[in-house]
Amino acid sequence: MVLEVAHVTVLAGHEEAFVDALSEAADTVLPSADGFVAFSAHGWCVERPNVYLFTIQWASLEAHTEGFRGSDLFTDWRALIGPHFDGPPAVEHFA
Amino acid sequence: MVLEVAHVTVLAGHEEAFVDALSEAADTVLPSADGFVAFSAHGWCVERPNVYLFTIQWASLEAHTEGFRGSDLFTDWRALIGPHFDGPPAVEHFA
Repeated sequence: MVLEVAHVTVLAGHEEAFVDALSEAADTVLPSADGFVAFSAHGWCVERPNVYLFTIQWASLEAHTEGFRGSDLFTDWRALIGPHFDGPPAVEHFA
Repeated sequence: MVLEVAHVTVLAGHEEAFVDALSEAADTVLPSADGFVAFSAHGWCVERPNVYLFTIQWASLEAHTEGFRGSDLFTDWRALIGPHFDGPPAVEHFA
């Protein structure tokens, strides 16, 4: 089991739209991904305004980095949440 | 509710000792802290060797930053895990 930890810097003014889009993407896209286990939205950073944290549990590292990122589902995922990103998200994995 | 997210860089060769100390500290120190809700050890970073992630849920930001950090419990906590730190931990809060 691997935990994906994603810090997203969100465009100013897009806060509410991002949270809505993330919720929609988590509900509609992730459950179809092979190796997807669980999604958690953790909210906004106290120390860094406009940074939002979410985590995703995957059955393996490759389920995320190869399976999901190489699939059409990733296109759908990014189409929903990507327009609200202020730069690339910071993503790491913990095992 | 606030989530403390702590990334700890652990001294080389201290990996096992740190994990044991963190488990002991979580079991023996945290349950006595006012506002402590839950502790989770998430393991080692795939992308940054020797970086370990743990999270702690607190009833409020102040329960951690003022209550816990200002208490003798914090001295006990750091006495257990601090000897294995390679530099100060990176700690943020999400709400």
